Amino acid sequence: MTGETPAAQVDLDRLRRCGFPEVVFSPGKTVTAIADIFRSLLAHGQDCFATRMSAEQARELIEQFSTARHNPTARTFHVPHAGTAPARSTGGRVVVITAGTGDLPIAEEALETARWMGCETDLIVDVGVAGPHRLPAQRHRFADADAIVVAAGMEGALPSVVGGYVSCPVIAVPTSIGYGASFQGVAALLGMLNSCAANVTVVNIDAGFKAGFVAGLIARNIAKVRHGESEA
Amino acid sequence: MTGETPAAQVDLDRLRRCGFPEVVFSPGKTVTAIADIFRSLLAHGQDCFATRMSAEQARELIEQFSTARHNPTARTFHVPHAGTAPARSTGGRVVVITAGTGDLPIAEEALETARWMGCETDLIVDVGVAGPHRLPAQRHRFADADAIVVAAGMEGALPSVVGGYVSCPVIAVPTSIGYGASFQGVAALLGMLNSCAANVTVVNIDAGFKAGFVAGLIARNIAKVRHGESEA
Amino acid sequence: MTGETPAAQVDLDRLRRCGFPEVVFSPGKTVTAIADIFRSLLAHGQDCFATRMSAEQARELIEQFSTARHNPTARTFHVPHAGTAPARSTGGRVVVITAGTGDLPIAEEALETARWMGCETDLIVDVGVAGPHRLPAQRHRFADADAIVVAAGMEGALPSVVGGYVSCPVIAVPTSIGYGASFQGVAALLGMLNSCAANVTVVNIDAGFKAGFVAGLIARNIAKVRHGESEA
Amino acid sequence: MTGETPAAQVDLDRLRRCGFPEVVFSPGKTVTAIADIFRSLLAHGQDCFATRMSAEQARELIEQFSTARHNPTARTFHVPHAGTAPARSTGGRVVVITAGTGDLPIAEEALETARWMGCETDLIVDVGVAGPHRLPAQRHRFADADAIVVAAGMEGALPSVVGGYVSCPVIAVPTSIGYGASFQGVAALLGMLNSCAANVTVVNIDAGFKAGFVAGLIARNIAKVRHGESEA
Amino acid sequence: MTGETPAAQVDLDRLRRCGFPEVVFSPGKTVTAIADIFRSLLAHGQDCFATRMSAEQARELIEQFSTARHNPTARTFHVPHAGTAPARSTGGRVVVITAGTGDLPIAEEALETARWMGCETDLIVDVGVAGPHRLPAQRHRFADADAIVVAAGMEGALPSVVGGYVSCPVIAVPTSIGYGASFQGVAALLGMLNSCAANVTVVNIDAGFKAGFVAGLIARNIAKVRHGESEA
Amino acid sequence: MTGETPAAQVDLDRLRRCGFPEVVFSPGKTVTAIADIFRSLLAHGQDCFATRMSAEQARELIEQFSTARHNPTARTFHVPHAGTAPARSTGGRVVVITAGTGDLPIAEEALETARWMGCETDLIVDVGVAGPHRLPAQRHRFADADAIVVAAGMEGALPSVVGGYVSCPVIAVPTSIGYGASFQGVAALLGMLNSCAANVTVVNIDAGFKAGFVAGLIARNIAKVRHGESEA
Amino acid sequence: MTGETPAAQVDLDRLRRCGFPEVVFSPGKTVTAIADIFRSLLAHGQDCFATRMSAEQARELIEQFSTARHNPTARTFHVPHAGTAPARSTGGRVVVITAGTGDLPIAEEALETARWMGCETDLIVDVGVAGPHRLPAQRHRFADADAIVVAAGMEGALPSVVGGYVSCPVIAVPTSIGYGASFQGVAALLGMLNSCAANVTVVNIDAGFKAGFVAGLIARNIAKVRHGESEA
Amino acid sequence: MTGETPAAQVDLDRLRRCGFPEVVFSPGKTVTAIADIFRSLLAHGQDCFATRMSAEQARELIEQFSTARHNPTARTFHVPHAGTAPARSTGGRVVVITAGTGDLPIAEEALETARWMGCETDLIVDVGVAGPHRLPAQRHRFADADAIVVAAGMEGALPSVVGGYVSCPVIAVPTSIGYGASFQGVAALLGMLNSCAANVTVVNIDAGFKAGFVAGLIARNIAKVRHGESEA
Repeated sequence: MTGETPAAQVDLDRLRRCGFPEVVFSPGKTVTAIADIFRSLLAHGQDCFATRMSAEQARELIEQFSTARHNPTARTFHVPHAGTAPARSTGGRVVVITAGTGDLPIAEEALETARWMGCETDLIVDVGVAGPHRLPAQRHRFADADAIVVAAGMEGALPSVVGGYVSCPVIAVPTSIGYGASFQGVAALLGMLNSCAANVTVVNIDAGFKAGFVAGLIARNIAKVRHGESEA
Repeated sequence: MTGETPAAQVDLDRLRRCGFPEVVFSPGKTVTAIADIFRSLLAHGQDCFATRMSAEQARELIEQFSTARHNPTARTFHVPHAGTAPARSTGGRVVVITAGTGDLPIAEEALETARWMGCETDLIVDVGVAGPHRLPAQRHRFADADAIVVAAGMEGALPSVVGGYVSCPVIAVPTSIGYGASFQGVAALLGMLNSCAANVTVVNIDAGFKAGFVAGLIARNIAKVRHGESEA
Repeated sequence: MTGETPAAQVDLDRLRRCGFPEVVFSPGKTVTAIADIFRSLLAHGQDCFATRMSAEQARELIEQFSTARHNPTARTFHVPHAGTAPARSTGGRVVVITAGTGDLPIAEEALETARWMGCETDLIVDVGVAGPHRLPAQRHRFADADAIVVAAGMEGALPSVVGGYVSCPVIAVPTSIGYGASFQGVAALLGMLNSCAANVTVVNIDAGFKAGFVAGLIARNIAKVRHGESEA
Repeated sequence: MTGETPAAQVDLDRLRRCGFPEVVFSPGKTVTAIADIFRSLLAHGQDCFATRMSAEQARELIEQFSTARHNPTARTFHVPHAGTAPARSTGGRVVVITAGTGDLPIAEEALETARWMGCETDLIVDVGVAGPHRLPAQRHRFADADAIVVAAGMEGALPSVVGGYVSCPVIAVPTSIGYGASFQGVAALLGMLNSCAANVTVVNIDAGFKAGFVAGLIARNIAKVRHGESEA
Repeated sequence: MTGETPAAQVDLDRLRRCGFPEVVFSPGKTVTAIADIFRSLLAHGQDCFATRMSAEQARELIEQFSTARHNPTARTFHVPHAGTAPARSTGGRVVVITAGTGDLPIAEEALETARWMGCETDLIVDVGVAGPHRLPAQRHRFADADAIVVAAGMEGALPSVVGGYVSCPVIAVPTSIGYGASFQGVAALLGMLNSCAANVTVVNIDAGFKAGFVAGLIARNIAKVRHGESEA
Repeated sequence: MTGETPAAQVDLDRLRRCGFPEVVFSPGKTVTAIADIFRSLLAHGQDCFATRMSAEQARELIEQFSTARHNPTARTFHVPHAGTAPARSTGGRVVVITAGTGDLPIAEEALETARWMGCETDLIVDVGVAGPHRLPAQRHRFADADAIVVAAGMEGALPSVVGGYVSCPVIAVPTSIGYGASFQGVAALLGMLNSCAANVTVVNIDAGFKAGFVAGLIARNIAKVRHGESEA
Repeated sequence: MTGETPAAQVDLDRLRRCGFPEVVFSPGKTVTAIADIFRSLLAHGQDCFATRMSAEQARELIEQFSTARHNPTARTFHVPHAGTAPARSTGGRVVVITAGTGDLPIAEEALETARWMGCETDLIVDVGVAGPHRLPAQRHRFADADAIVVAAGMEGALPSVVGGYVSCPVIAVPTSIGYGASFQGVAALLGMLNSCAANVTVVNIDAGFKAGFVAGLIARNIAKVRHGESEA
Repeated sequence: MTGETPAAQVDLDRLRRCGFPEVVFSPGKTVTAIADIFRSLLAHGQDCFATRMSAEQARELIEQFSTARHNPTARTFHVPHAGTAPARSTGGRVVVITAGTGDLPIAEEALETARWMGCETDLIVDVGVAGPHRLPAQRHRFADADAIVVAAGMEGALPSVVGGYVSCPVIAVPTSIGYGASFQGVAALLGMLNSCAANVTVVNIDAGFKAGFVAGLIARNIAKVRHGESEA
């Protein structure tokens, strides 16, 4: 089932196959094109979620979709479908942790994504490894997570340390924070791929959405069993 | 709690913190050093699992640990602890899929890891994207997985296609199979990091162990809820 | 035979040797320089085609060449020579396929190039691999192509899948669409170079012109035989 | 239609979809596995062709497939199927050109591939650009090709020069010949991707098979029209 | 002997050691700093030459140094010292050749440098390899050069071809002209470093000054012998 | 003052200028050449120290220099000069820490270097970040160091964590331990260069000698003041 | 001890552990966030130092912290705490040397950092290796340093030469000065990592702060002994 | 004029065009192929010179060409043609300088090449920049060179320093000597490309032949004028 708009072929079947509707990646799309996709999704009873939305795009779209929620830091845009938006806090628990304050936009993108998927979320900021007492002090907040997202730039060392404390998967998202030999996030990416902690996987540089999505998927699939839902 | 052997500080507390004992990465370690670590683990009631073990190392160790299971393709070595080895098939369901036959050693490493973690496993080989009918023909075998590992070299396109069919996380492991501009797995790694499927995360090149571990962790955490275990 | 203008040596003999006139790459050239080249070509009875033309360049040139056709998305500029422009749809059939909507400018550049060469063209958009049912649904539109151009960014997986369906060459053009580890098209380029489909060749990142040109050349050389033209 | 052997899923339908049977990439496959695939293909009336075959693999296989033709320089292995092998010289004309003598193994791989596809072939060696009179002296041998393969290492400049003389596509294959900043073929690959000749496309480093296959496909599709075959 | 200005230590002894005065690299220097260096040089009877000068810098400096010659395309700035400027055309013969028109600014920088060194110069533009008849047609203009500079972007193939025609050194300067896999001149740089012509050496990307300087040095050292000057 | 041997110009003045004699880098040197350098140093009353010495080189040299000390793990070779070898433990305190057991050869090279410089040394092994309790448990052993060397491969995260605990400089030495995207130590190198700890500097991959030398220099310069030596 | 501000967790314990308070990296932080951190530090009796501060940030902060010292070239911002700022010239002697005038901003950042740490400092500019007499002429100014910072872009050769003259550590900081194959400082970084001088360590590209900090730490730890302070 | 041997097209016209005969690059060529080329050259009165010749190749060839001179360190092989070998020391003066003893094989290749071209040569070894007094001490030996080759690995800093002392061109050849971040000569290559000395050009990594050839060409072209030969 494909919803053909003038500029795109909306994958309306994705909700059935993959558990969540298609998500719109906003850069390079006109406001008209995004609105067309949103309407196609809504017409088929599906929730709309967009990422990397610019302030300009959001300003115009909010006029057409008055129930939308735009988070300018996360650059996300959510148009809930009246009947179908997943209830918050029935989708498991996702914790997002950042090494520095500069990682916040990516962390927020992950958070908004997990929230859109119905997960309960928590955010722990600025607990990078150079202040070794800061992370353990927050341990009670992430010990019982179903999945953890760790956003870090520069050397990207934090996911390994977090991974050493928990028995759930850690989704590491390298950020482009840094300069010089950080090479726009490459140093962090390589560090995370080479993590000595066995429970750490990695997504693309600055891919807050994908980190939040995988964490949300892990958490939701556990929650479905926990809540007795029939599994897909 | 640390078990100090002459050559290493065994992290005996990892089982409690992370759900599974420390795993031995064999390259560069002497047989004596590995045997010391194994004995330290066994003495504390923990299962022993080692990866990247050479035929030479295995030949010598099997004489000391007669109950061990060595998979020469996967290069894994498992010394089960009498009382504590997790029961097979109570740890959720992990499916491993390969693009080509050359990806088999890495796929086997992932399989053995997930089996060691108590997961039920299945292996689907040689369903790369250039034969587009091969993957859908196997869909019934991976549709109900708790987590899927996809091993692929060269262009690394298979995880995206698998990701488009399922609602569970896909752990993509790039392999060093290929030549020329595959750059020993870099092409596959980059392809997987840029996957257009939202449920795909990535581990290091040839990191069959880590892919299997994360998949096993996801599956086992679901299975624990399913089987009514108290969660960590 | 060389047409020396103040800034360039126009290769007026290329039409005879290579089947088509020299094409102007616009960046870094002044409007005067481009106009000089156009006039030199027209004076020798040759069609004028330019790529990567900016809106500013086009605005000024259109005043001097009133019969020109400018496609601002493709950034192409075509000044047909009265007597010699190849008849549309006698040059074989070229189909252009894109993975996402962001690949459209490059796809349009390929399309305009193939049209300029006299080919019949078709465009299929937004059929990336994460929605696995979308491409097969369009199969009737590309099955009988003489050559296919596939434009894709990010992981660049689509050409392999298209290649698995057809018996004509597939010209893969990586686009710079993506972020982070897409490295401005490098991930897609490497993926395409490592394609497991045997009928896939590759051109430079964002090289819509070259992809369209090679596809057009293949299609036209078949069409010449089909239409009984004497071959070069 | 898939032929499942113990180690592989042979794509028996590829002949119908793509015009030629699946080709075996030999590295990492056991002789038994290759023999199984060959028998599966032969049982379905399909020709067998393998690339990158080692001397050891060939020695054992030749005992089982006595009609096979092994080219040790090209590392190709061909087991013709009695009734179906395409007639030589009805598949169009492919010319292979090399810059130096070190490029010969890759050139031979391309030649053998095109011959297997039924093309008439010619080989021109050692006409690199530093001896500028050598290529034009051979022009009569490549002027009427349906497709040209150019193999070159080091700086990879030859395809551009060849491209400037002809009106057919040029398939450039970078070779890993060179040292230092040739980076095992990367310099040649980049040179070819940036070729200023519009009719040049590129395949992977050392990918003689793919270069020969695409050239053979172009030539054969023209030849089919020329010979009045019904087109696919 | 060092001329200390507030911001720099001018190497006033360089003329004696190296044959020419220190040359000013303008980026990042204030107009005041450049003027101070110029005055220090002039006060010691030395000629002033600066490269990479912006239009803004030049506009202000020309007011202070009214005899200066500014070439805005080359971005060079020359303040001749009354008594010491080398006589034009007594410094040997340098020819600069470009592959395309986009290479002109770098070629001009090389030309101005060689002229400042007193060389007779010639410029041949737009004779890239895809039009194979264009370079031989100009052969009479570069056959008797003492040194040749070849500026080329994209694939950087032209120096090898030029090198094959002459018995003088060819200084290859890769330019950042191109897009995609040209990587801002890296493709051209690698091509030139791997040139199969033995008489080709290479300078940094876009280093028109250095190419012109080395060519000028070679030409001038020959000319000194030719004109009977005592050699350094 | 230079000691010319047939194959080298020994920098006999380095002891005076830099505080320690020239050190021999053994690869690519013949045993005769090394012995010549040693004799030249000894003749001028200087201690001999060599790195990266192969077992073969050491076997032959030990016969000529019977007082030598060879550490085969560190690959160092020390021929003390009777009167001048610095007294152990008067050169300050250097602690070497490793992330894993594979980093031991590089750590040993650093240790031997610091010992040769007269420093008191300590070695702490296998305290990588994934076992977060292991490093703090050893804190008493490194808290009072004058300089610390941290050797780590893979992600290279340990120096940042160590740096967060101490007020002395940390010299980070990336090792080539790891696989896949560790790129022979590049991942660790980039991680260390981007360390968020302000007291971390970096040396080349596997450069145990340089790490040990800089740490030894820092420690010795403090010790000189501490012991009332006149400073250089 | 952590001072939680709305946007950050200030590491108030760092002064005790590492000898100096936490330093603020300004990019990406709001003026409010920086002011909050400053107030938190001041409230705990700690000195405030910030790097990479923009002119805009500084302009607003200077209004709130009237005793602050802003160096616009160095982009540093210092709010001394009345009672605790370390006395100038009791922290040892740090010399900063630059290869060219373009390296000045990074050199100034290192200087200001060392000054903030209480060190006596000196700056020697524009003594790059192509003018070989310039550095030795300044030798009296750097011979007695406790630590030396060398900032250089382009080829980054200066630290090796400086290292050959002294018996103290040299902290090399590569700068992004240069063009083409300098790759924004990568060429200098690699040169410095491969320095043949044993006393050279390296920090990140443009990391003036870190270079100054490590040099300051070395100098201060010597000075503490020299001045009879009790050591940490 | 081309001499076609079974495996190659010998460029017999190169002596006329470029001043010296074609040189054989030995790797990948059979002894028979090399001997064929030598005979073709000798038959046309041309001198034979080959590079990168293995000990095995040389052993077999010396039996066929008894007047040949083989330098095993340089890996060169020279078969002089009775009547035509250029007289030694009439071709100008070339000096080769190395940074370390490991650079000797490349330096020897350059030396042998320049000697083959008839130049007078000198070799200065082991004068790297960390011993700053060693180079100036040899200045009298290189001050009057017509061209200088500098071979250096690791950081590649020596050419800049040499360049600062002389008024002739310096041909820098990076060697693959080093480890870790030397990346097999890439660090030295980048350093040399970014040299701050204006008279430095660069050839490929380990390209001793090309460095020697260009230096020889410069020297010989001066010598021709000096000796009153008619110029080409």
